[in-house]
Amino acid sequence: MVKVNDNYQKLPGSYLFSTVGKKEREYRAAHPDKKVIKLSIGDVTQPIAPAIIDAMHKSVDEMGVRETFRGYAPDLGYEFLRSAIVKGDYASRGMDIAIDEIFVSDGAKSDSANIQELFALDNVIAVGDPVYPVYVDSNVMAGRTGTYDPATGQWSNVIYMPCLEENGFAPMLPDKVPDIIYLCFPNNPTGATITRDQLQKWVDYANEKKAVIIYDAAYEAYISEADVPHSIYECDGAKKCAIELRSFSKNAGFTGVRLGFTVIPKALTIDGVSLNAMWARRHGTKYNGAPYIVQRAGEAVYSEAGRAQLKEQVAYYMNNAKVIKEGLAQAGYSVSGGVNAPYIWLKTTGGMNSWEFFDYLLNEASVVGTPGSGFGPSGEGYFRLTAFGTYEDTVEAIERMKKLI
Amino acid sequence: MVKVNDNYQKLPGSYLFSTVGKKEREYRAAHPDKKVIKLSIGDVTQPIAPAIIDAMHKSVDEMGVRETFRGYAPDLGYEFLRSAIVKGDYASRGMDIAIDEIFVSDGAKSDSANIQELFALDNVIAVGDPVYPVYVDSNVMAGRTGTYDPATGQWSNVIYMPCLEENGFAPMLPDKVPDIIYLCFPNNPTGATITRDQLQKWVDYANEKKAVIIYDAAYEAYISEADVPHSIYECDGAKKCAIELRSFSKNAGFTGVRLGFTVIPKALTIDGVSLNAMWARRHGTKYNGAPYIVQRAGEAVYSEAGRAQLKEQVAYYMNNAKVIKEGLAQAGYSVSGGVNAPYIWLKTTGGMNSWEFFDYLLNEASVVGTPGSGFGPSGEGYFRLTAFGTYEDTVEAIERMKKLI
Repeated sequence: MVKVNDNYQKLPGSYLFSTVGKKEREYRAAHPDKKVIKLSIGDVTQPIAPAIIDAMHKSVDEMGVRETFRGYAPDLGYEFLRSAIVKGDYASRGMDIAIDEIFVSDGAKSDSANIQELFALDNVIAVGDPVYPVYVDSNVMAGRTGTYDPATGQWSNVIYMPCLEENGFAPMLPDKVPDIIYLCFPNNPTGATITRDQLQKWVDYANEKKAVIIYDAAYEAYISEADVPHSIYECDGAKKCAIELRSFSKNAGFTGVRLGFTVIPKALTIDGVSLNAMWARRHGTKYNGAPYIVQRAGEAVYSEAGRAQLKEQVAYYMNNAKVIKEGLAQAGYSVSGGVNAPYIWLKTTGGMNSWEFFDYLLNEASVVGTPGSGFGPSGEGYFRLTAFGTYEDTVEAIERMKKLI
Repeated sequence: MVKVNDNYQKLPGSYLFSTVGKKEREYRAAHPDKKVIKLSIGDVTQPIAPAIIDAMHKSVDEMGVRETFRGYAPDLGYEFLRSAIVKGDYASRGMDIAIDEIFVSDGAKSDSANIQELFALDNVIAVGDPVYPVYVDSNVMAGRTGTYDPATGQWSNVIYMPCLEENGFAPMLPDKVPDIIYLCFPNNPTGATITRDQLQKWVDYANEKKAVIIYDAAYEAYISEADVPHSIYECDGAKKCAIELRSFSKNAGFTGVRLGFTVIPKALTIDGVSLNAMWARRHGTKYNGAPYIVQRAGEAVYSEAGRAQLKEQVAYYMNNAKVIKEGLAQAGYSVSGGVNAPYIWLKTTGGMNSWEFFDYLLNEASVVGTPGSGFGPSGEGYFRLTAFGTYEDTVEAIERMKKLI
């Protein structure tokens, strides 16, 4: 008799953003007269840049003609894109990453959820707290996290690294030694970053303890300060312990276009087994490549015109971040993040917990944000706002929030 | 200390089509003067139909304008596409499938590899032999298949259902009772089909034994005979035991566009747990939706113009199938399939095994096919040819093969 994977039943409630979306829809239905402003999910609002649109039209045309039609893509990605990535993101910053260390995918969310498959089920993961929910949930589904304690909001087999105000909302090295360490810098949800020297300590720690770091650099394009690393491979020894996840969603607005990539250096072996070879096998068996059109769109991200247009787009969102951060700080809110990241991490007011503040903000200001507690227990009492709205909406939302304090 | 998922190391050799590709590349490099014809991988050669190209251009334009830009898609797919699927593939054939039973994805390969996650690790799978390698390999990676015996080419915990000449190269009900049954009709690789009455027996068996059928209908568009079912939901009781996988790769040439969907009826529960809800949770956590542009392309598949153009495209490939089947049969080869499927299943000549015949065909005729043994032990001594080449190449390949016998 068939049996289900019981681990799914251990997941508490539904996915964070589904709940946020549901509450928003209910509010809209009940208040059709109100203009709701979403500073919640990390979805972008600016259209795809012209250089990328041109590349997509061109590749759509190619698909309509027998001579230039493309069927199955190479499992790991077209060389034109992998080569553009190597040059644009790594060689240009002095890092020596080879084309066959790049794996193109349909996005960093899928990769961050699937990467755990490469590891044994009894490995112990460490995550920041708060954290992007996918890291933990994908490990819950695989059966790696033990039992859930509703009182603490924690799993028995997960090592939590609290991101607290006193350490700038970045995680600290854990007391217990993990096997797999998830790091996200610039951080989602807190917007925190660390310096190259600080990241080097993590790399040294992982190499010493024989742990693997899964480094989520989805927000790399938002880095504005010189001593913040753009890639973990800027650190010595990182190729021996770190996998890097990258996204096109936030630097190029590809949330609905779907493209990302993962870097697994060939030097990263465990007991002689190459993680690069394992991931290649996974791609070959369980994935069929990103669409040709989308890979050409990705290539255009690295073109001269694409770069210039996207620099403007990122500046647009970072101006929103400034509007949020400075506006709320002036009004008396306690805020952090927003300098090297499109996220602002906000302390709730009036002693409200995160979901109370969510409801309060929705009801009093028709503004949707994301409850910090949805990202982990240490997020309780905090709230995430994103800079991905339009400028006009962002200004309006902050004006409304100023009146609440 | 981190440990890898040992199950990956159990996989014998590389993915079948990677090996075929490697041998082909080596042959081309050694014989630059020869025109190699590929009738191997199931990749299409006809360009995307005009109605679909138009829809893609239109949606690319939408992505370039703020007012019509689309970010994250709904996790389970846009309603416009799910609704077109329900109407075009199910309601039109008298089946009552609801929109929220359709899950849009980046392709049937991913879905067929990921679907096993919903089940317990000690469940036993049954597969046809020969079979599309992804069903078994994805279960190997999860640790569900036991140990591999190189002598037999079989896994200790997998139930094999031989597809032999005496049963028309379709699998027979297994002697041992499985928990999960993979069925593919029209069949890849043998091109076999079964009637509605025969499929009803499988559904009744699954319901009686409380097993789940994973029904891969990727080649549905190639069905030409009236009593061959287009969907497992044409059978009574199938909604209680069957998941159906569908692809746009072969009916619309989307191998490089990437789109598929999975149907999980809400009536399909195991011990009160809904597989539909589990798959929705998986999509929400581990996937981020198919690209908007690609979903609009999928919608155009169901438009009046799209349907008419694709009917022609399928007819083109089925004419190739006829060329292969009749040509080879006349020459004295033993062939089957090709009537309701784009695959021709060929007995090797001269007592050669499948890989020997592969090398022979490549060296003597510069034709690339796929060794039957790569799909499972009962495929030994057989060879798969596909109808997805161009008409001209197909005719030429068959002329060359005629001279070999």
